[in-house]
Amino acid sequence: MNDATVRVTYQVRAAAREIEARAEALLLEQTVELPRGVVRDARVLERIVGRVEEIRAEAEHYRVTIAQPLATTAGDPAQLLNILFGNSSLQPDVLLADVELPDAAFEWLPGPRAGIAGLRDLTGVSHRPLLATALKPMGLGPDQLGNLCRTFALAGLDVIKDDHGLADHSFCPFEARVEACLRAVDDASRETGRTALYVANLIGSPERVVNQLAFARKAGVKAVMLSPMLLGLPFLHQLASTPDGLPILAHPALAGILRASEATLLGKLFRWYGADGSIFPHAGGRFNYSLDTCRAVASALRDPHSRVRPAFPVPGGGIRLDRLAELFEFYGRDCILLIGSGLYEAGDDLFQRARALVKQVARASEEPAA
Amino acid sequence: MNDATVRVTYQVRAAAREIEARAEALLLEQTVELPRGVVRDARVLERIVGRVEEIRAEAEHYRVTIAQPLATTAGDPAQLLNILFGNSSLQPDVLLADVELPDAAFEWLPGPRAGIAGLRDLTGVSHRPLLATALKPMGLGPDQLGNLCRTFALAGLDVIKDDHGLADHSFCPFEARVEACLRAVDDASRETGRTALYVANLIGSPERVVNQLAFARKAGVKAVMLSPMLLGLPFLHQLASTPDGLPILAHPALAGILRASEATLLGKLFRWYGADGSIFPHAGGRFNYSLDTCRAVASALRDPHSRVRPAFPVPGGGIRLDRLAELFEFYGRDCILLIGSGLYEAGDDLFQRARALVKQVARASEEPAA
Repeated sequence: MNDATVRVTYQVRAAAREIEARAEALLLEQTVELPRGVVRDARVLERIVGRVEEIRAEAEHYRVTIAQPLATTAGDPAQLLNILFGNSSLQPDVLLADVELPDAAFEWLPGPRAGIAGLRDLTGVSHRPLLATALKPMGLGPDQLGNLCRTFALAGLDVIKDDHGLADHSFCPFEARVEACLRAVDDASRETGRTALYVANLIGSPERVVNQLAFARKAGVKAVMLSPMLLGLPFLHQLASTPDGLPILAHPALAGILRASEATLLGKLFRWYGADGSIFPHAGGRFNYSLDTCRAVASALRDPHSRVRPAFPVPGGGIRLDRLAELFEFYGRDCILLIGSGLYEAGDDLFQRARALVKQVARASEEPAA
Repeated sequence: MNDATVRVTYQVRAAAREIEARAEALLLEQTVELPRGVVRDARVLERIVGRVEEIRAEAEHYRVTIAQPLATTAGDPAQLLNILFGNSSLQPDVLLADVELPDAAFEWLPGPRAGIAGLRDLTGVSHRPLLATALKPMGLGPDQLGNLCRTFALAGLDVIKDDHGLADHSFCPFEARVEACLRAVDDASRETGRTALYVANLIGSPERVVNQLAFARKAGVKAVMLSPMLLGLPFLHQLASTPDGLPILAHPALAGILRASEATLLGKLFRWYGADGSIFPHAGGRFNYSLDTCRAVASALRDPHSRVRPAFPVPGGGIRLDRLAELFEFYGRDCILLIGSGLYEAGDDLFQRARALVKQVARASEEPAA
């Protein structure tokens, strides 16, 4: 691949007699935003306007691949999004289907800080899927969430994350919650000999989130979660690039509003911008993702890349406990299984249910199939 | 309206026998993310879980109105988005149709800093639509953009903004561009006696954008543009709230809204979060907005509000010059008309075309030409 080319593929709905003109308009919309004849400077046409590489008819649309000069991105995480899908996101006949970046882009795109290997180191789990759950519901105070956290840690879960709706509420301030949960995993570790990874949810405007991150890091938090589409992908880039950052789990809140393929947004872009793991709804839960979509997201997160670490797929969104074997087979061992309601439904038996789940995962992972 | 209630309306596609359960699931998804029976703390049910207020059958969907306690938002601009459309944005049967906030929310939502009245003060135009254009294409250097800026300023345009794709490119650094454009409007003002408002585009990660804003302000820039969906709505909130900020035009890049109404996102939310004007494609240009959509966006930006200033609708997106009369009638005088290609097509006659446009707007508004 040309070292200075961004290759973007769109699905475009158009009539056969219109598709060439439509592809040309799409090309121009991403950079110069002027008809070709109106661009007066020949160097702009040469250096800025890319070209339509391929138009391929598929069943219900055309697949249009456009090559844009990497220089148009200015090495800027927000401007890259403009080039890929700025104005064209407003056009209902276009879907962002795929993106390929040259190696040179990863001089300024950080990719995961820890990635799969780094998160395995943090949890001490080397050969099986990691088991995660979420602290909820919103409305509980720090002590109540701390107690839940202690229960899950004693039961042996690997990753215990805040729900993405846990903000800096007056009834549950960020700092008090973080301290209670860190105390809980420490307490539990004295009994179990293992320390669960508590993942704090960062949420707010950038200035608030920068303060939350600094507090969490100082308190001893080893990984954080944030919602890139809520907070802005360029801010994910900033937090993944800062030397005093932490590994990041990405949550898909607000990500549904974009006309982009899930694999591109939740897979490639989240990974390139710095997520160490990306949460998404597994097929058959409360959301409408297909198995093909889940497979494509997982590939986009884990496929080998010359410059960027692999990141964990984190399937969740209402996984029933009786589907675990199926998930094992589907994702293999490099995933984080996120189980929420399936545990909470146990009520008073929360510890027993969580403990049984941990054992089930350990057993299944000893089998050669995993 | 109850002073502590966020009222959110969704369009939901569901069968008649399922709609009540679907509405209940939607209610729970936004906050506790657990089935009602699994929420064990009675105070959480009372204080956090809102209620389904109304389910109304419409032609092809149901209109479901949900009342959520304002306390769930934690007074946080990112968390408000979670409550409105975090997880539910991922569900294809749901569209965010409308939002109403109680007055108490505007203790922490800034709304426009300048708004229509403030931008009129900055431009000295009191009784007619403002006339704006964009500096482009990407690829030109600071001097070339400065020359274009001078031409437009001499012709009498009120607002001259960077194209949203002008980033901090090596061939056109942010600082050099800003200085060249400010010089240009100053030069022109010595001839015309009026100073055009140059609007600098801010783009990048938050730490970069904060630096760009500080530079621009010190250099004498009086208003800036940014793309809230590229940079993150909570960052718009931060920039609109800071004492040393500037009025902000919002650009719709990446706002391709599959599942939220344009009036809600580009109108209400952009205004509430602090945009002084919001750019959107007028019907019949390069994008697919209907006149109804444009009317709804304009209303959401300008409708009287007890706590928030009105913001300018900024229709653009390929407006042909022969449609001006129609736009005047459609938007009335409180708008900023954004004309790009329609001017650039004039080539060597750019000044004459721009001057003619200025005179046409002045005539139509029954004011002496600037």
